[in-house]
Amino acid sequence: MQSINAAIVGGTGYTGAELLRLLSQHPQVNIMSISSRSEAGNPVADLFGSLRGQIDLSFTDPSELDPSNVDVVFYATPNGIAMQQVPELLEKGVKVIDLAADFRLQDINVWEKWYGQQHACPEVVATAAYGLPELNRETIKSAQLIANPGCYATAIQLALYPLLKANLLAPEDIIADGKSGVSGAGRGAAVGSLYSEVAESFKAYKVEGHRHQPEICESLENATGIRPQLIFTPHLLPMIRGIECTIYAKPKADIQTLQQALENAYQDEPFITVLPLGSVPDTASVRGSNNVHISLAQQGQISNMPNRVILMAVEDNLVKGAAGQAVQNMNLAFGFEETMGLNQLGLMP
Amino acid sequence: MQSINAAIVGGTGYTGAELLRLLSQHPQVNIMSISSRSEAGNPVADLFGSLRGQIDLSFTDPSELDPSNVDVVFYATPNGIAMQQVPELLEKGVKVIDLAADFRLQDINVWEKWYGQQHACPEVVATAAYGLPELNRETIKSAQLIANPGCYATAIQLALYPLLKANLLAPEDIIADGKSGVSGAGRGAAVGSLYSEVAESFKAYKVEGHRHQPEICESLENATGIRPQLIFTPHLLPMIRGIECTIYAKPKADIQTLQQALENAYQDEPFITVLPLGSVPDTASVRGSNNVHISLAQQGQISNMPNRVILMAVEDNLVKGAAGQAVQNMNLAFGFEETMGLNQLGLMP
Amino acid sequence: MQSINAAIVGGTGYTGAELLRLLSQHPQVNIMSISSRSEAGNPVADLFGSLRGQIDLSFTDPSELDPSNVDVVFYATPNGIAMQQVPELLEKGVKVIDLAADFRLQDINVWEKWYGQQHACPEVVATAAYGLPELNRETIKSAQLIANPGCYATAIQLALYPLLKANLLAPEDIIADGKSGVSGAGRGAAVGSLYSEVAESFKAYKVEGHRHQPEICESLENATGIRPQLIFTPHLLPMIRGIECTIYAKPKADIQTLQQALENAYQDEPFITVLPLGSVPDTASVRGSNNVHISLAQQGQISNMPNRVILMAVEDNLVKGAAGQAVQNMNLAFGFEETMGLNQLGLMP
Amino acid sequence: MQSINAAIVGGTGYTGAELLRLLSQHPQVNIMSISSRSEAGNPVADLFGSLRGQIDLSFTDPSELDPSNVDVVFYATPNGIAMQQVPELLEKGVKVIDLAADFRLQDINVWEKWYGQQHACPEVVATAAYGLPELNRETIKSAQLIANPGCYATAIQLALYPLLKANLLAPEDIIADGKSGVSGAGRGAAVGSLYSEVAESFKAYKVEGHRHQPEICESLENATGIRPQLIFTPHLLPMIRGIECTIYAKPKADIQTLQQALENAYQDEPFITVLPLGSVPDTASVRGSNNVHISLAQQGQISNMPNRVILMAVEDNLVKGAAGQAVQNMNLAFGFEETMGLNQLGLMP
Repeated sequence: MQSINAAIVGGTGYTGAELLRLLSQHPQVNIMSISSRSEAGNPVADLFGSLRGQIDLSFTDPSELDPSNVDVVFYATPNGIAMQQVPELLEKGVKVIDLAADFRLQDINVWEKWYGQQHACPEVVATAAYGLPELNRETIKSAQLIANPGCYATAIQLALYPLLKANLLAPEDIIADGKSGVSGAGRGAAVGSLYSEVAESFKAYKVEGHRHQPEICESLENATGIRPQLIFTPHLLPMIRGIECTIYAKPKADIQTLQQALENAYQDEPFITVLPLGSVPDTASVRGSNNVHISLAQQGQISNMPNRVILMAVEDNLVKGAAGQAVQNMNLAFGFEETMGLNQLGLMP
Repeated sequence: MQSINAAIVGGTGYTGAELLRLLSQHPQVNIMSISSRSEAGNPVADLFGSLRGQIDLSFTDPSELDPSNVDVVFYATPNGIAMQQVPELLEKGVKVIDLAADFRLQDINVWEKWYGQQHACPEVVATAAYGLPELNRETIKSAQLIANPGCYATAIQLALYPLLKANLLAPEDIIADGKSGVSGAGRGAAVGSLYSEVAESFKAYKVEGHRHQPEICESLENATGIRPQLIFTPHLLPMIRGIECTIYAKPKADIQTLQQALENAYQDEPFITVLPLGSVPDTASVRGSNNVHISLAQQGQISNMPNRVILMAVEDNLVKGAAGQAVQNMNLAFGFEETMGLNQLGLMP
Repeated sequence: MQSINAAIVGGTGYTGAELLRLLSQHPQVNIMSISSRSEAGNPVADLFGSLRGQIDLSFTDPSELDPSNVDVVFYATPNGIAMQQVPELLEKGVKVIDLAADFRLQDINVWEKWYGQQHACPEVVATAAYGLPELNRETIKSAQLIANPGCYATAIQLALYPLLKANLLAPEDIIADGKSGVSGAGRGAAVGSLYSEVAESFKAYKVEGHRHQPEICESLENATGIRPQLIFTPHLLPMIRGIECTIYAKPKADIQTLQQALENAYQDEPFITVLPLGSVPDTASVRGSNNVHISLAQQGQISNMPNRVILMAVEDNLVKGAAGQAVQNMNLAFGFEETMGLNQLGLMP
Repeated sequence: MQSINAAIVGGTGYTGAELLRLLSQHPQVNIMSISSRSEAGNPVADLFGSLRGQIDLSFTDPSELDPSNVDVVFYATPNGIAMQQVPELLEKGVKVIDLAADFRLQDINVWEKWYGQQHACPEVVATAAYGLPELNRETIKSAQLIANPGCYATAIQLALYPLLKANLLAPEDIIADGKSGVSGAGRGAAVGSLYSEVAESFKAYKVEGHRHQPEICESLENATGIRPQLIFTPHLLPMIRGIECTIYAKPKADIQTLQQALENAYQDEPFITVLPLGSVPDTASVRGSNNVHISLAQQGQISNMPNRVILMAVEDNLVKGAAGQAVQNMNLAFGFEETMGLNQLGLMP
């Protein structure tokens, strides 16, 4: 199988660094360039010490990207950048995987409302595949443009999808309580991300609505035919990596049936593990890996309880929630084995 | 006002240490003894370095406790210890504040089911005051035996109580997603509490039911006349101190009405702060203090959403969730000013 | 005793917040104002949640400071600000305590070299008392201007001073390996202080020389008559508060003699505890308190070892290393009891 | 090249888990068994969630180890276990890599003094290769028994070795200030390793002497012909993985000469990176990898300074400080490429 040439646009953030880590160990990928306006000319190892002695690349200016020289471009930029540049790349036959949100929502009105800007290429959005392989694998395989899903959106959908699809959960009044490590906020210098502010503390944020809510609802509707009615509240964890979502939904069958449906749905998925009943997933078990652990529980033994099933899902927000899923999508789009370059086990402890 | 003599039984855990910290700074309390079977004879400062040079006490054997010499005994022991010893102390006229769970549930059947043992003195339970001052102040003032509430139970009840009481929330299908720092698990040597297991990780636990669920339901029913129907799922945070609970309930009025009701209910409470709409509470703001911060939010702007209000409450699990609330109860029971010895501001950062 | 009026200039950083915490609990101080150019007009509780419901102050513009209305002004500003404003305040009879470095070094040439700027009022420097009470108490009592020492400088001097003074350590080739929590870097939004950069990592910094080195040497020379020859290397700890310094020096007597000398020197100091031989100090034991713990050790049992004594000292960098020491200095300068407002025990765990 | 069969004895600790992580990704190794007396019969994935769905092994009883079936046995047991069992394995032709300390010291008297027990097979110690490849590669290649070095001992020796060997450092009065993440203390349930004790705190330990001191001195003497005179003080870091050692030594040449000597010594070493002058190594850069970063600094610009060079070295204590180095030794002993299975980049952030 032939190797491919990849470029990363926006390489100074944590998802860019994680793409470097994963792609540099991918047997079929040559990293042609990683760009950053602010760091152009500087060795990547000066910014990311873990790459010192391992990767001999310097940041380039984004303008130097030569489409004729690359097979795939990863956008690890803030929202609103990729949509300015992607149409031209697509015309030249390059595949694009956007790790930001520019192509995640098919409904442009909803996108513009939640992202607070006009979309630069609504007609291109319609051609984008939503890059959640476990829901959308075949579309991804033939896509030229892939919208890598949001981090929370990945965990919540993977937990809900098989049960909604099998009509084992009521779509109404689903409550998702999400928690993320602070690397999800990126590498920007913000007071709210300082160690002294984040460590030894915990709080909710964006309690009036988070952008992943409409993304989850639209994608699950596309995948199951039913639009779920969902509340999603994110929280900030005093840790670097990891997302956990605890989801409360009304079951339409007993818990053993739900467990069986989950296990069946994911039995052939290389990155999804359904834990046995009685186990709970912890984020440390998936640290640094592309794996997702999911489990189910119920508090039904107590009389006079709400009739709810509890779904829990964990992932590494920088891997399955970002760069790892992007590589998984690239593997699908280029016909590589889906797990190629993604076999690392979680770093524990 | 006359000073009182206090003894602490079970002083080697974190709630015992926190009692020492608070009582040693209380202007009306003499700490007569702090007991520990395993550490009897050793200076407390050898175990708790923060007390070195500050408190000149050694641990005593629990058998040395002289009831004629003390006005109040605090039990900071594991569940099941206090109920063996309290009846005798009560007979001798000593007041008792139990920081464990032995007297928290009036329904003995429920207690025995959840705590997995037979209760040693069911008849004494009926005399115990449930020590949540904001719900139960007058009873506490005249009680000889006070059951200090559970840590999660404190936060969840303080958030729900005024709104349930004012009939502004539906009592059905309330969902409380709780998160606690690991000090809540105590100072016992357990693999699950090791730094390498807890740090940089997050998970749910006791997902099939936690003992604070029946405590919350019984106490709220006593206080409001309505029994709420509640799911409660605790999670373990990678931090030492702090509890946050995010609670999802169905409102019976608009959010401004709920906000106003909360503010009115707590306007004279010295330890409860209702944040303005648009703010979220973080645990760091109450670290080391007896304060509770509560806020409200709603995601109602989005169409097709579950009709839910989101309540958030934070506390320091070792202070308002344990030792601080015990001191507050002591102040009430002995006629001291309720805030005496509890004026410390949170340690931030 | 009469209360005094205090103002804080530069209140949005961690030392400003810590001053607020301590001064608001000081029985003899009225906080008249806390200023911040960027936050003028905003309630302090919006920035520091721990003060919500506790302190009803808003930030003022620094220009609004009215010298006729205050007895003491604390500067919690970046280096180079206080020296612009202090001469005018001194003329008007106000006492000033500078928590920054503007008045820490008597040798102006050395100051200008290390701080990279011209000093604005060298003649005023000569009138400043170096605010380390355990070395310099009498001078502080009568000073109008007090230079609050550096955080590392406090710990290292307190460990070395009695032994150098008693001629029990060689002044040559002293090696101080210091470690500090990240709150010492302040509340500025810097990538290097982000949670994701600091947590779960450790490194040295300023290995080519740190500003506290000349400060330590000058002050110890003033206090003992001997100028020590010192290497000092700071390191960044993945934690919020706390400094530990491990110091290697050549002893001129056996370790029991040194221990006795340390204990004698500090037996009447309210904030300094010398641990018994065999104990080591940990930063958690002094978290949130104004205490310093010091201990001694020697590895002399092994043959062919360097002849070194190991001194260890811990403090809370924001308290004894900054705001607490400032309050201690204020107490001395105004004739209050030295420990007033500083009796909090460490927050443990 | 032929695959080999490996067994791990003592698999429930962190070094055992790390061996599993590395060996399961090694292309030439079949993991035949991992034993644990306490967990025999249980799936490894129940203990280590990161292996769930990835490794289908259950713990076996140590007595079931069949020497005829394995080429190499790794001991990840407490000190004193391997020496009981190794002679028999060696007789049967099996290679052994001991990650504990049983074979690290050639001087049996020194070993027995520091480890507080009689050695079970002193005659076998003489046949053991000290498994620090960068100092001892050729011996390791032909050894049947390899003593994997201590974690601190690895970092300190790698920093000092080339400079001592080149006679660029005085061997007298070397001071090594070491700091380690708490995973180095293992997975045992100990109060001192609890999150609430370790987090947000820092302290020295074993200040009267640590076992790695004689190991470093003996090995460096063997490798350079000169016995260094060394003080080594370890400290406990509030983090999981990572060791940093800051070493103060008297240089015999200028810093550029030392830098050049270090760079030359390690230019062909795959796992050692010498940072350019002006850089400092941080432990996060080597998290999860087998890499060691080393740098040099000097504070010589200040007058009247001790004449010292500062060496800093970082490693992941569980990888290059334990399991990774064990795999590196295995690669050498079996003729595999030295870096096989050890190419992971550090997990950053």
